[in-house]
Amino acid sequence: MIYFDNAATTAMTTEVLKSYNDVVTRVIGNPSSLHNLGTVAGRLLNASRRQISDLLNVSPDEIFFTSGGSESDNWIIKGTAFEKQAFGKHLIISSVEHPAIKNSAEWLRDQGFKVDYAPVDKNGFVLVDELEKLICEDTILVSVMAVNNEVGAIQPLKEIATLLGNFPKISFHVDAVQAIGKIATKDFLLPRVDFASFSAHKFHGPRGVGFNYIKSGKRLTPLIHGGGQESGKRSTTENLPGIVATAKALRISLEGFEEKHAHVAEMKKVIYNELKEHNNVLVFSGVDNYAANILTWGIKGIRGEVTVHAFEDHEIYISTTSACASRKNSAAGTLMAMKVDPKLATSAVRISLDYTNTMTEVELFLTVFRQVLLKLG
Amino acid sequence: MIYFDNAATTAMTTEVLKSYNDVVTRVIGNPSSLHNLGTVAGRLLNASRRQISDLLNVSPDEIFFTSGGSESDNWIIKGTAFEKQAFGKHLIISSVEHPAIKNSAEWLRDQGFKVDYAPVDKNGFVLVDELEKLICEDTILVSVMAVNNEVGAIQPLKEIATLLGNFPKISFHVDAVQAIGKIATKDFLLPRVDFASFSAHKFHGPRGVGFNYIKSGKRLTPLIHGGGQESGKRSTTENLPGIVATAKALRISLEGFEEKHAHVAEMKKVIYNELKEHNNVLVFSGVDNYAANILTWGIKGIRGEVTVHAFEDHEIYISTTSACASRKNSAAGTLMAMKVDPKLATSAVRISLDYTNTMTEVELFLTVFRQVLLKLG
Ligand SMILES: Cc1ncc(COP(=O)(O)O)c(C=O)c1O
Ligand SMILES: Cc1ncc(COP(=O)(O)O)c(C=O)c1O
Repeated sequence: MIYFDNAATTAMTTEVLKSYNDVVTRVIGNPSSLHNLGTVAGRLLNASRRQISDLLNVSPDEIFFTSGGSESDNWIIKGTAFEKQAFGKHLIISSVEHPAIKNSAEWLRDQGFKVDYAPVDKNGFVLVDELEKLICEDTILVSVMAVNNEVGAIQPLKEIATLLGNFPKISFHVDAVQAIGKIATKDFLLPRVDFASFSAHKFHGPRGVGFNYIKSGKRLTPLIHGGGQESGKRSTTENLPGIVATAKALRISLEGFEEKHAHVAEMKKVIYNELKEHNNVLVFSGVDNYAANILTWGIKGIRGEVTVHAFEDHEIYISTTSACASRKNSAAGTLMAMKVDPKLATSAVRISLDYTNTMTEVELFLTVFRQVLLKLG
Repeated sequence: MIYFDNAATTAMTTEVLKSYNDVVTRVIGNPSSLHNLGTVAGRLLNASRRQISDLLNVSPDEIFFTSGGSESDNWIIKGTAFEKQAFGKHLIISSVEHPAIKNSAEWLRDQGFKVDYAPVDKNGFVLVDELEKLICEDTILVSVMAVNNEVGAIQPLKEIATLLGNFPKISFHVDAVQAIGKIATKDFLLPRVDFASFSAHKFHGPRGVGFNYIKSGKRLTPLIHGGGQESGKRSTTENLPGIVATAKALRISLEGFEEKHAHVAEMKKVIYNELKEHNNVLVFSGVDNYAANILTWGIKGIRGEVTVHAFEDHEIYISTTSACASRKNSAAGTLMAMKVDPKLATSAVRISLDYTNTMTEVELFLTVFRQVLLKLG
């Protein structure tokens, strides 16, 4: 089996699962409990928080655990809207955001907020000049993802940060779900960024765990009210085994970042070069300014789903762009925003690599690719 | 060690943890993925949903997974409010609800909704006559928990259901977090109930997993928007290992309910009878109409926290009522609503038993209790 669908989800590694199991079997308490079982649990919770904040070079009190990338995104979008509604009701998001952002913003629109979409160019990059034109008196939030999940475009966050330097009252959110471990942390966790969202299962952590970076001093209405956990910002009995496992997964994923990145980039280059040689193959992702792990392409005139199944017959797993869009059989929203001809866009499939993949897998993939192309192309 | 703090959280059992591990190591796919790894994952997700719905005697399409009891509660309260705001903006909750309900409702109040609290009598039971008086044209939701987490009072849900039979447009929510496996399911999942909330870690399932029963046909605005998982009602990559483990935990927890219940009730009775013999001991929980696992009491003039620590010295773990309130050092909200003299209320501690506890533990507890009472009382 060759798993090239790592942007959809990754498997928990043995070490990470071991951390999870260790906590389940050894730590019983609820961190909120007064007795020393609670104290032990609370200490472990804070150690994990510190481990994550150290890895990201931020402060532990800027990390807030959630149930995943979607909750993290919803919380920032809705939490900012409700928190700052007295100051303005206008949000700007890019036109290629994940549905967790897009549909949160759409819902806010029904509640009387105004939402504008910053367009992207034909390669999938946010047009910062166009974004600038959308800013108005009422703007309270700009949300732009670091790495696009459907084509891998790395968004021009530095330019946006510079622009927003002139608008200190606007909050700046970065969906970093596809970025962490894939591009250098300092390239998306910029000083001007107020909020950033993460999901553990994208970096070999457990499903159902995520976290938000919330810059110190930034206020945010909770999405989940209750007993007052996470400094009163996000309530529920903490998923301690999941949180400890997440900290472990993040450490492993950022360890030796340069080598991992170079290895993934090399694998992508080999596939990319082969794809480029065929006239009946469309390549939607580029190399420069694109994440090294994501490569979106298609066979002209062949629906993405047909290509996915052709590879599946060889136990090679790729996807029709985002997992969410897959089952709904819709063309990738990002390709639509890039104004790719819808007929071409429906051919799109996404390869998403991981540092655990090997060059041997890439070679096997390419052998199968040539067969598939002969058959379908 | 004797763990009598099972209402705060329970440990995942070996079998449940094994299910979690099996899924992590054997099932790689994201249920939304188009390829057959996704299909396998999707099938397992639905099998778990069906297992849970069968156990609760409802339909699989009425079960929606969440990240725990707090999210489940927040979703129902806020989701109903936003969904039905055009029809009315008045909510009624009991005065002894968990903070996940109470603080959600308080927040909605800031957003222009109106919230009334149905009072309880001195024993902690909702006064249905008083609740009735609060119902008005604008009422869209009544939310009353099945079993109170601080004193164990089983709320008169049947009477409330009968009352609400006359108000078919009002949604009826039951927080069943402390009820499932503790009282018979049919006693809280009544036909008139529209929504019920659950949390896995209270019945030996994993932390960070919960679910809602949402009656077929009932509409609810999502709390977490995004990729459209859970029939578009709650988006995020599904926590498949956690969900499978939850289904397993629920099955085990409901297996042999009668015997488990009788065993827990017997343990409670033995402790209760002993407590009642001491003049300087206050007993806040009763036996009839109280959950068999919860017993809240206190030593006159001694702060609950002192009592907790005295038992902790003997490796016996009990709590100062709810875990959430513990660290904040506030008297239990339920005792306040019962109009217990605040001076007496601050003495409260909660024992919460589990079917895994033994009569030997109870006897050891009582031996220590007598020592503690001699020392502190
Ligand atoms: C860019 C982006 N944001 C958010 C999410 C949502 O993450 P999760 O599935 O953990 O809720 C995803 C993954 O699906 C993503 O790719
Ligand atoms: C009655 C009740 N509702 C809701 C909750 C919240 O559950 P969780 O901690 O899983 O979010 C709890 C537990 O703390 C509870 O006792």
